[in-house]
Amino acid sequence: MKTLVIVSHPEYDNSMTESFLNQCQNDIDSVDFLVLDHLTDNYQFNVEQEQQRLIKYDRILFQFPMYWYSSPALLKKYEDDVFTRRFTYANEDGKLKGKELGIITTIGEPLRNYTVGGSEGFSINELLKPYQALAFKAGMNFIKPFTVDQFAYMTNAQKSKLLVDYRNYLTNDDINSFSSKQRWYFEQLEELKEQLSPEKQTKLAVIIDYLKNNYDQLDEIKWELDLIKKEEDE
Amino acid sequence: MKTLVIVSHPEYDNSMTESFLNQCQNDIDSVDFLVLDHLTDNYQFNVEQEQQRLIKYDRILFQFPMYWYSSPALLKKYEDDVFTRRFTYANEDGKLKGKELGIITTIGEPLRNYTVGGSEGFSINELLKPYQALAFKAGMNFIKPFTVDQFAYMTNAQKSKLLVDYRNYLTNDDINSFSSKQRWYFEQLEELKEQLSPEKQTKLAVIIDYLKNNYDQLDEIKWELDLIKKEEDE
Repeated sequence: MKTLVIVSHPEYDNSMTESFLNQCQNDIDSVDFLVLDHLTDNYQFNVEQEQQRLIKYDRILFQFPMYWYSSPALLKKYEDDVFTRRFTYANEDGKLKGKELGIITTIGEPLRNYTVGGSEGFSINELLKPYQALAFKAGMNFIKPFTVDQFAYMTNAQKSKLLVDYRNYLTNDDINSFSSKQRWYFEQLEELKEQLSPEKQTKLAVIIDYLKNNYDQLDEIKWELDLIKKEEDE
Repeated sequence: MKTLVIVSHPEYDNSMTESFLNQCQNDIDSVDFLVLDHLTDNYQFNVEQEQQRLIKYDRILFQFPMYWYSSPALLKKYEDDVFTRRFTYANEDGKLKGKELGIITTIGEPLRNYTVGGSEGFSINELLKPYQALAFKAGMNFIKPFTVDQFAYMTNAQKSKLLVDYRNYLTNDDINSFSSKQRWYFEQLEELKEQLSPEKQTKLAVIIDYLKNNYDQLDEIKWELDLIKKEEDE
């Protein structure tokens, strides 16, 4: 499975969050990163070239900081220009049919404020309807959104979790089933670590780091987890 | 009440719909039209100048053709640039607090397709949530959206109705109560017309045209309607 992350962030080069997310994935061969703010400086795109790019991927992800409850304008321009009617509509040429569309959005407020009665008043799910509608029209599968809230306040442990979850979102071909297992597994490892002698703690920390930085290894974790689950079921 | 219509349409000068809507209002002193595509050709705005513009109006309307279930990118850029946090947030400087925000959107598909199970899959109300959230954050009153569907297929009678409804949306300080009355009144007049002799038909057509083209006169219709209603109530 090949994944394209299309990033739009007017302050991309100064964003700690974007820098972190970029580092999370830059070792993965099956993932390509396209930063629109580096692609153009005048809001113009090469439509033909971009369409040729899009059709090469199985999962297309829009990644952006929430600006007025939507993407920054540049990603909208990309949508307006590149997702032409004939190319996109499932009932016309439908070149994106069967692919996946997902949204990675970073927010400054805590996620819990995105609710009726909260300071933002609306849920992320409600606010992303226009993207869901785009996926619907294109015959794409809209996968559940990935929200990063308050990155600036994250502890190292939270950042480690984010790294695992983010890599999972980019590469796991069955996101819903794997993500929670993965998180659970790392939580167990972290908990275990605190019960060990300092020497063994260091050793386990290295192992955890290694696992988190190698997606192939994460596949093995999945396999081990499935094995444990199997034994439990029997 | 002063109204600002902020229009975004990449093909503004070639749009029959936009041309019609512009003609519908250009005699009204209390309405100003701002076509973003005429204001800039490089996606840059003078933020200070635009903020000074916005605070002069009571009702701010975004008018655009639906592009991927949202506005064209240029209006999004205007939002991103001009609606700065401090200027906009109700709990900061809140310069827009108490004003109205409304959306006028033109769509090529019939409105009835914007529904679960329809070809568009989502309702206009769902798709406009990001604007509703903006209004919420700014402490603005979000008025009900105004949708023009399939302008190209409209009969003259439908266009006359559109004209009346549109003027009403731009200028009536109590949209919900007046619009239906107004529409009803013109429907009655059009019905009446068909029962008259050709000579009288022509005369009534002129009167209807005159009424439709003079908003002061529409105010008088409202007054007459209220009078009729009063007499009925007594």
